[in-house]
Amino acid sequence: MQKLLTGIHQFQEHVFASQQKFFERLADGQHPLALFITCSDSRISPNLLTQTKPGELFILRVAGNIIPPYGAVHGGEAATIEYAVSVLKVKDIIICGHSQCGAMGAILDGADLDKLPAVKSYLQHAESTKRIVTENYPHITDPAAKLSLTIEENVLVQLENLRTHPSVAAATGRGEVKLHGWVYQLHTGKVFAYSAASGQFMPLEDLSFPVEHDTTRELLAI
Amino acid sequence: MQKLLTGIHQFQEHVFASQQKFFERLADGQHPLALFITCSDSRISPNLLTQTKPGELFILRVAGNIIPPYGAVHGGEAATIEYAVSVLKVKDIIICGHSQCGAMGAILDGADLDKLPAVKSYLQHAESTKRIVTENYPHITDPAAKLSLTIEENVLVQLENLRTHPSVAAATGRGEVKLHGWVYQLHTGKVFAYSAASGQFMPLEDLSFPVEHDTTRELLAI
Amino acid sequence: MQKLLTGIHQFQEHVFASQQKFFERLADGQHPLALFITCSDSRISPNLLTQTKPGELFILRVAGNIIPPYGAVHGGEAATIEYAVSVLKVKDIIICGHSQCGAMGAILDGADLDKLPAVKSYLQHAESTKRIVTENYPHITDPAAKLSLTIEENVLVQLENLRTHPSVAAATGRGEVKLHGWVYQLHTGKVFAYSAASGQFMPLEDLSFPVEHDTTRELLAI
Amino acid sequence: MQKLLTGIHQFQEHVFASQQKFFERLADGQHPLALFITCSDSRISPNLLTQTKPGELFILRVAGNIIPPYGAVHGGEAATIEYAVSVLKVKDIIICGHSQCGAMGAILDGADLDKLPAVKSYLQHAESTKRIVTENYPHITDPAAKLSLTIEENVLVQLENLRTHPSVAAATGRGEVKLHGWVYQLHTGKVFAYSAASGQFMPLEDLSFPVEHDTTRELLAI
Amino acid sequence: MQKLLTGIHQFQEHVFASQQKFFERLADGQHPLALFITCSDSRISPNLLTQTKPGELFILRVAGNIIPPYGAVHGGEAATIEYAVSVLKVKDIIICGHSQCGAMGAILDGADLDKLPAVKSYLQHAESTKRIVTENYPHITDPAAKLSLTIEENVLVQLENLRTHPSVAAATGRGEVKLHGWVYQLHTGKVFAYSAASGQFMPLEDLSFPVEHDTTRELLAI
Amino acid sequence: MQKLLTGIHQFQEHVFASQQKFFERLADGQHPLALFITCSDSRISPNLLTQTKPGELFILRVAGNIIPPYGAVHGGEAATIEYAVSVLKVKDIIICGHSQCGAMGAILDGADLDKLPAVKSYLQHAESTKRIVTENYPHITDPAAKLSLTIEENVLVQLENLRTHPSVAAATGRGEVKLHGWVYQLHTGKVFAYSAASGQFMPLEDLSFPVEHDTTRELLAI
Ligand SMILES: [Zn+2]
Ligand SMILES: [Zn+2]
Ligand SMILES: [Zn+2]
Ligand SMILES: [Zn+2]
Ligand SMILES: [Zn+2]
Ligand SMILES: [Zn+2]
Repeated sequence: MQKLLTGIHQFQEHVFASQQKFFERLADGQHPLALFITCSDSRISPNLLTQTKPGELFILRVAGNIIPPYGAVHGGEAATIEYAVSVLKVKDIIICGHSQCGAMGAILDGADLDKLPAVKSYLQHAESTKRIVTENYPHITDPAAKLSLTIEENVLVQLENLRTHPSVAAATGRGEVKLHGWVYQLHTGKVFAYSAASGQFMPLEDLSFPVEHDTTRELLAI
Repeated sequence: MQKLLTGIHQFQEHVFASQQKFFERLADGQHPLALFITCSDSRISPNLLTQTKPGELFILRVAGNIIPPYGAVHGGEAATIEYAVSVLKVKDIIICGHSQCGAMGAILDGADLDKLPAVKSYLQHAESTKRIVTENYPHITDPAAKLSLTIEENVLVQLENLRTHPSVAAATGRGEVKLHGWVYQLHTGKVFAYSAASGQFMPLEDLSFPVEHDTTRELLAI
Repeated sequence: MQKLLTGIHQFQEHVFASQQKFFERLADGQHPLALFITCSDSRISPNLLTQTKPGELFILRVAGNIIPPYGAVHGGEAATIEYAVSVLKVKDIIICGHSQCGAMGAILDGADLDKLPAVKSYLQHAESTKRIVTENYPHITDPAAKLSLTIEENVLVQLENLRTHPSVAAATGRGEVKLHGWVYQLHTGKVFAYSAASGQFMPLEDLSFPVEHDTTRELLAI
Repeated sequence: MQKLLTGIHQFQEHVFASQQKFFERLADGQHPLALFITCSDSRISPNLLTQTKPGELFILRVAGNIIPPYGAVHGGEAATIEYAVSVLKVKDIIICGHSQCGAMGAILDGADLDKLPAVKSYLQHAESTKRIVTENYPHITDPAAKLSLTIEENVLVQLENLRTHPSVAAATGRGEVKLHGWVYQLHTGKVFAYSAASGQFMPLEDLSFPVEHDTTRELLAI
Repeated sequence: MQKLLTGIHQFQEHVFASQQKFFERLADGQHPLALFITCSDSRISPNLLTQTKPGELFILRVAGNIIPPYGAVHGGEAATIEYAVSVLKVKDIIICGHSQCGAMGAILDGADLDKLPAVKSYLQHAESTKRIVTENYPHITDPAAKLSLTIEENVLVQLENLRTHPSVAAATGRGEVKLHGWVYQLHTGKVFAYSAASGQFMPLEDLSFPVEHDTTRELLAI
Repeated sequence: MQKLLTGIHQFQEHVFASQQKFFERLADGQHPLALFITCSDSRISPNLLTQTKPGELFILRVAGNIIPPYGAVHGGEAATIEYAVSVLKVKDIIICGHSQCGAMGAILDGADLDKLPAVKSYLQHAESTKRIVTENYPHITDPAAKLSLTIEENVLVQLENLRTHPSVAAATGRGEVKLHGWVYQLHTGKVFAYSAASGQFMPLEDLSFPVEHDTTRELLAI
């Protein structure tokens, strides 16, 4: 605790004091560029990763970057998303998973969860992730490969859940909000983004921009 | 009531008696081709419309052909879908809306719903439909056109909800189940199907078959 | 899928075309005689069984013809029932179970349900069925007899659940709606109806009509 | 508060001390005769009313003696009922409403409930009561008569809800538990019991005993 | 049942008749001193214990005197508390546990609860009690001592839950309502009250009155 | 979006590359000092404010730093808290509100929330905040002062909610976890901490450390 208190003192003495005007203007209101959804894992610092300043990222952080479908729980995820899209009018929503995610590990070995009833209950919103990994990739047995797969598939599953939120469904329908699925790799610092064109996660720097991709409803047979 | 009793008698005397072998074999088990999800509206008869016999369609019918996202309610929709996909291994799931749908009308004029608390509560699972119609198509004011739009958009919204069900997510992911969005037009008998290629509903007969369409994850920017 | 598309074409060419007037009139509105609640099982065709035409039966179909008590889930069952009674003013509600019902089988061997979490969750609304069969009929051990008993008891349990829905409670109280419990036997085509007078299910044809039976509150000791 | 502390002292000095053997034996276990469900209203004292001693009545008290149907809330009502029936094996369950009930008054004038969100939410489990009174007795406009009617109808509605609890459904089915609907009249001390034979509430003393009444399933048309 | 009917007759003949004025005045309205929350256990009689008359205690009784946190269930507990505080303006709320409590015993041996699903579900609101006993007192292994500890800790846990109810949070904040945690010992008739000063439960008679204790927010580090 | 992509590139080139060892070690596991709960507001950067590095703060961020009581929703808040306390063994939990919080503003003018149903639903978990401000401080009418009060009271209310989570209740009971209530002031960079000793929020630098404060159960009258 002492470390945090000392840090706050340093922040006030050095950071805030040297950019006082900037911080004072912040108090007038926020106009974030994006809603950044990621895990609560201490090793992720969204502002550090994207080199953004206060005021630029609206941030939702919960264990496993899991987003229950709309109506499934009347919790903070739905309210935060609705506020970001309908009030703050963010233009992009990123769901950013990460390597070595403990919550994703918990999906794979469910046995240990009896002493973690709240975690167990929450992971029902990643049941699709579990079934996709178990049923569709039975040949992947290497634990590390399986965890990586789970992390990627979960980002895609949570994007599906995200799309059931009415504010998101309406805003993506009229092209005002774009959805992005990323995975941050802790030991390399790399970020991989899902590419619909290639159907896989690719290093962010390999993707050409702007990606003009119609986000709507290409999902149906017939 | 007397009409139903007379009808059952006729069924037994004429229909069952003349095809007794067929009906007896049915009792051995069911192997339906598809899960057909439609409204409870009395004017829809799925077997008549598709000229199918008993044993061919597993049928889920609720007002407004609304499918709450997975986890939102522990009701019959989720159980019926899971049973169809995981136990019966259906190959196709059709969500079939219809013209002149009373539930869709109720979405548009919410004022009357105070005396219908259960309907009101259920329509929260079509909140995306409402927002898409209201926010994205403000220029459509003609009541009939607005209702038609609502019916079509709702089919697409419920398909999104359907995709959050784990059994569906996993089975579509490995290509074992295909999803279809239809609207049945009461006064013409026509069926319109959503075509991802054209981004609109088209007469079923105008679509060439088989449609080879990848159902997975083309929905993301970047 | 091709079979359904061919069937729809046949419907349009032959059925709709030959009764065009009838179908066009249907589009003006619906005035169904009854709300027919039955299982999603593909082998049941309510219109075929009752020899009714489009417009005559408002139909609710979910696995196991289970109706959660009012307030237990904000799902499609409650909304559909409320709409049928309060808006469409149906005069009769039939809950129709059937022989060889897979959902009822699942009640009896709960062990297999770990891979069917949505089904398992839904069956809590048939917990009374399970307890009645297990506790009150321990002497019935023959699997087929036990399944038949379960199917019958479940119809009665779901009728109790149905009576907790406010629209039903009020309408039955003033005699405007009557409730009926049926079981359809797949291999004989017979329908058995619960007779309060005899306290058992009897072949529909053996019951004299009209049955004048006070549906209200004869259920209490003292 | 002081009054309660003084009372407890008196209880210990006079009541407990004079019947020490009786109280000590109580600590060995409880074998109550009945589950007595009534309102939290301070003017009702179940033990005083029935002249019973500690150990004789298992008592569930919540505002308005409202019992949510099984599955509607995972609250104390369901657990208390299940414990009484399945563990304590009570032979009778009494739901006892009372005159001048504030919760029943709240049903009739819903306007005041915006500042009482928990009460408002709870009263959804008495929605049937409200609809029965409003729809089936529009001619009763005298406030006192309307409140009396509401109190009586609510007892009957809650008995219906009670019957959806699996332990109750099974135990009444095999005749081990009987259900009773009573109303206690504060200003006369009289108790009125619902008589299925006469279809109305009658003074308890006017009912001959034992009443042999089959509690099961006489509720259905056909 | 006959015993209760005889008791009511005696009440009417002897108790009510001899104090008719008192009972008639009661019908004018209630002004209880306190909200008394206790277990449904038949061996507890709040009015007998506190030597109070009808009209003096508003009483909430559910198995295990468990109070779900606000928002956790829309059940009778929240409504009853809100009504007591916001409408009746009670000055004190007592949560009174008791020795030999069956519900508390059930917390300790969870294995038997599979046949009591409603009890099991309800006990999640005493999950804190279970974890405190299990994790913080592993050295207490004597069953009787463990049960006593569980009963005491549960009273404190439920007081925490009680404090999340908005009416209670606001009223305690302005000093209008005081909260009390008691345990009633069946075989001695003694009542033990939690003393914040000493951090333990003490015999009620050993506590000096009035206890002037600030109830608000002394709970935080820093 | 382009800004984020450029930022990530800069992070990789400059930050990660220059401290590669540090980041690689992070991938081995996390051992955060504290669970930091704050609002999703873009103007807050917990790592910047506390001058902490990746790996030091486990971070939960939702609109309004609202924590539903345990059992109220099966959402991300409960799972994240349980994981932080039971698995990661954090020693401190900080709930950090902030000035100019939009969610707190929404509590005060509820009228605008009809178009934000998810926000409205979520704010029920701050109902205590609303009632405390409205009922206990009617004399505070200046909007800025009222908002400041709301922000502070909400931190205290959410700390109460936090204490109902079993992992927190048990861990604080044995002194392993300490709870802290802070408010970050955007335009001054100051942090105010709740001081139980003085009963108010005070500048963090004015508080002497270490504060040895017993966190347990001093909250009860008698
Ligand atoms: Zn993670
Ligand atoms: Zn319809
Ligand atoms: Zn079936
Ligand atoms: Zn009352
Ligand atoms: Zn007890
Ligand atoms: Zn904020």
